[in-house]
Amino acid sequence: MAYELHYWPTIQGRGEFVRLALEAAGAPYVDVARGAESAGRGVPALLGAMDDPAQPHPPFAPPFLKDGALIVGQTAAILHHLAPTLKLVARSEQARVWTQQIQLTVGDMVDEAHDTHHPISVNLYYEDQKPEALRRAQAFCRERLPKYLGWFERILERNPGGSRHLVGGKLSYADLSLFQLVEGLRYAFPNAAQQALARTPLVVALNARVAGLPRVAAYLRSERRLPFNEQGLFRRYPELDLP
Amino acid sequence: MAYELHYWPTIQGRGEFVRLALEAAGAPYVDVARGAESAGRGVPALLGAMDDPAQPHPPFAPPFLKDGALIVGQTAAILHHLAPTLKLVARSEQARVWTQQIQLTVGDMVDEAHDTHHPISVNLYYEDQKPEALRRAQAFCRERLPKYLGWFERILERNPGGSRHLVGGKLSYADLSLFQLVEGLRYAFPNAAQQALARTPLVVALNARVAGLPRVAAYLRSERRLPFNEQGLFRRYPELDLP
Repeated sequence: MAYELHYWPTIQGRGEFVRLALEAAGAPYVDVARGAESAGRGVPALLGAMDDPAQPHPPFAPPFLKDGALIVGQTAAILHHLAPTLKLVARSEQARVWTQQIQLTVGDMVDEAHDTHHPISVNLYYEDQKPEALRRAQAFCRERLPKYLGWFERILERNPGGSRHLVGGKLSYADLSLFQLVEGLRYAFPNAAQQALARTPLVVALNARVAGLPRVAAYLRSERRLPFNEQGLFRRYPELDLP
Repeated sequence: MAYELHYWPTIQGRGEFVRLALEAAGAPYVDVARGAESAGRGVPALLGAMDDPAQPHPPFAPPFLKDGALIVGQTAAILHHLAPTLKLVARSEQARVWTQQIQLTVGDMVDEAHDTHHPISVNLYYEDQKPEALRRAQAFCRERLPKYLGWFERILERNPGGSRHLVGGKLSYADLSLFQLVEGLRYAFPNAAQQALARTPLVVALNARVAGLPRVAAYLRSERRLPFNEQGLFRRYPELDLP
């Protein structure tokens, strides 16, 4: 049975990390909220699943995944759950927990990138928090972005399985997530990302290698890949980038 | 062999979620950075373990746990790794992923609580970001705090194993983490927390039940439990609370 991915239909957002795993594995899935309301899909189907009073495990927020009767929320938990079936994680418990740890660190950086344009409240527009956004974005670009990318470079360097992957000698969902993180940073902060990435060649190489995987490349060319935009996690507001 | 917990020695912080799990299970552990430098402990031992160039899996930040030769960072990953051995999670993969999902949502709320006093940068003092902190804290107290607590109340209500626990009919690390979250919110935002908790009686009851568990109660009375303070995650700045 096809997986049901539930996420907002007009942005890549956090759902994109799950979508990339499903696409890279060639797994059958329905992107529910992007379907037609007349076919029982669309945003009403997402909201219906999330607010279903009979659901014992309601997710706090999208993305969430329906896997038969099971419903799983939280990006990192979804990936942890899916990865063994999708063969996107090594089998040992030790490799699973390390892959999860990397994913959680990607997630932390994603949260910080998001908060550059929403430092005060997710319930306000960017336009209502611009001075604060400018201050936060400067700190993010100058301090946090190089620090996080430096850590990813370091763990690639030290991977006993080789620097072509984050964990062992095979593709994992952590590689896909780091690919997406770099794509987002390059979109949102082209100058700051370029300056930091100049010092992390292994991260750059991994990004290019993932982009060239046949299934990923086909997905990126397809209409299923939404473009980045200014409603998503990664937004291009030139005033927030470094000069 | 005793676990080694590595975390900053003067704050509860994110390390407290791991400490509570170890304490509630009666597991032997060394709180490394709180030990004496003369005994090879203290902050230098923490920094040494984190910056060890021979470590293939260096953590991005504390807390991290050494379990024999294994090193695990990221609070939620540490708890996921420890919980089966500590008997703080049910055995099924489905229960493990749901418990993890709850923990990640606790972690998200913790991040947001932290950012009320650090909305701009972790590398600046609170005093350097006070106007922004005031705006962010108002949004947190009015919107986010009731929303998160409402979700925890809802999943307690709906737990097929009964409303005394978050997952099934037994204590899990998610219960301990929700206990700690409520303690922190009550410390940092006494008015806002009281107003929101008045509408979440099951969360309040769970907090009291966890506080009364013999091992937890003994820990809370001990010197091992650091008091809340204004260097930690949850800080009492009365100007940030609701009136």
